[in-house]
Amino acid sequence: MSRSSSPRARALLRASHDRGFTAMRNITEHNITDAVVGRFENCPDPRLKEILTTLVRHLHAFVKESRITEAEWLEGIHFLTATGHITDAKRQEFILLSDTLGVSMLTVAQNHAQPPGTTEATVFGPFHVEDAPRYAQGGDIANGAPGEPLFVDTTVRGPDGEPVPNAVVDVWQADEAGFYDVQYRELSEHRARGVLRTDAEGRLRFRTVLPVAYPVPTDGPVGRMLVASGRHPWRPAHVHFRIQAPGYHTLITHVFRAGDPYLDSDVVFGVRASLVADFVAHGAGTGPHGRESDRDYHTLDFDFVLAREAIASTAD
Amino acid sequence: MSRSSSPRARALLRASHDRGFTAMRNITEHNITDAVVGRFENCPDPRLKEILTTLVRHLHAFVKESRITEAEWLEGIHFLTATGHITDAKRQEFILLSDTLGVSMLTVAQNHAQPPGTTEATVFGPFHVEDAPRYAQGGDIANGAPGEPLFVDTTVRGPDGEPVPNAVVDVWQADEAGFYDVQYRELSEHRARGVLRTDAEGRLRFRTVLPVAYPVPTDGPVGRMLVASGRHPWRPAHVHFRIQAPGYHTLITHVFRAGDPYLDSDVVFGVRASLVADFVAHGAGTGPHGRESDRDYHTLDFDFVLAREAIASTAD
Repeated sequence: MSRSSSPRARALLRASHDRGFTAMRNITEHNITDAVVGRFENCPDPRLKEILTTLVRHLHAFVKESRITEAEWLEGIHFLTATGHITDAKRQEFILLSDTLGVSMLTVAQNHAQPPGTTEATVFGPFHVEDAPRYAQGGDIANGAPGEPLFVDTTVRGPDGEPVPNAVVDVWQADEAGFYDVQYRELSEHRARGVLRTDAEGRLRFRTVLPVAYPVPTDGPVGRMLVASGRHPWRPAHVHFRIQAPGYHTLITHVFRAGDPYLDSDVVFGVRASLVADFVAHGAGTGPHGRESDRDYHTLDFDFVLAREAIASTAD
Repeated sequence: MSRSSSPRARALLRASHDRGFTAMRNITEHNITDAVVGRFENCPDPRLKEILTTLVRHLHAFVKESRITEAEWLEGIHFLTATGHITDAKRQEFILLSDTLGVSMLTVAQNHAQPPGTTEATVFGPFHVEDAPRYAQGGDIANGAPGEPLFVDTTVRGPDGEPVPNAVVDVWQADEAGFYDVQYRELSEHRARGVLRTDAEGRLRFRTVLPVAYPVPTDGPVGRMLVASGRHPWRPAHVHFRIQAPGYHTLITHVFRAGDPYLDSDVVFGVRASLVADFVAHGAGTGPHGRESDRDYHTLDFDFVLAREAIASTAD
């Protein structure tokens, strides 16, 4: 089980010494940031070097400006550990942390300088799954999820108004209790979630349930952070869409329900005015697509406009 | 399973609206940082508010300055998730991450403005355990750990030279293979680790094994970060000490072995010149404390000076 310094480690060490790395025996709060950044000097990947350097400078500046104590530092270690331990195949607490600190939305916003007229992107969120069931045009993706019926009628177009046929559209949302299917431990099938394709005219119709506002999971470290900092955990009602079509940028977005009380204080900072739409209420009777509805229902019409791949990369 | 907005959530929401929080529907990369910071306005704990505000500002500045892409962001999420999943009762990868990015040492340095003449602190590291075996004065804490014998003779004093009797001293270190006992999965007992007490003159003697330089664990996410960024994973040879005595600040430090090739490039930035000491080599014969040694051995003499609690808090 004995180990000795590898030739590679010794070469790196010699390289360090050759560059005059000899003042590392008197680390203080004033020279440590440069010392750490200097250690990335041999990083073979320039992009990784840039990211690590910028990360270390800001991480250290945060610790210095806040005068973090050792007890606070240890609390931070415990927080990250708990965040890691609650994360599993069905729950991603680090994404939730990033979402609630606005980092996810910042990343989305700075990577999607939308050409005028195209639909804005928003956060992906932690509830998407890749193996959702496929539905035919007009299908009922609710699949038994509780909620008032919602009939959705959308089109997917390109920037010049051209229909985008055969686009692959992932749809996912919470039910009337405010839960996604993956949050029900006893549930083995997918509900209020599906993958569909636009028709030759770029049109897509399906039945689902009316989404409601819901709190993000509050039984973990992120929930404790929200409570401790006096923040509410609610997201305004929305339906998630991911739209993929060859030649166009993949669009990951939501459609939010107008009138929701949380539109101005979404806990994950995902709302954009252009993504808020009327979910129109109707009394029981004949619903869209000619189907009888014996209870009240809503309809949502929304048109998506994708950015073309070439155009978007020029605009970035 | 139905949930509705709690009275507390509704009150927070009203408070937000009353303060004119109405521009949150058009989140962009330019206004999101202020939007997130504004969300902590109701934080009941001023210290938590300060920390979260500073954290969000630096985290966002890092993402913006580095122009983090969505793929890079997701890689970061995966990195943190893997760091959480490899962390357990015996392994703390988040502390290792903090150590290798210099955050641990920065925190130590800015919280221990040592009064002149007192011993400097350094990083705690991830290998301390609270339930180490107790040893009497002169005991052999190696407890079978492989290595050349090392006889340690220390004193613990206060700033005026007064002996500190009955101080509780935790000692822990790697063996000649460069491993701590907790890194041997098959090992159920503690080796090269113990808790001792100073005598009436503040003196403490014990036998252990000569520490060697060792690499931090490289089979996890932190190891991958070190390799990818061209850094070696080595720490110079050292023995850890934690010294606790009523009326004095607890001292957490190392004694490093002079001549070690990694003193100038410690992967966790823990070296301070004042903590480097001679580990003196001796041929086989009569060792310290009058014990016969049939093999070569080393001795280490080192004097610790603790800061007095009142004095240290004035100096901080």
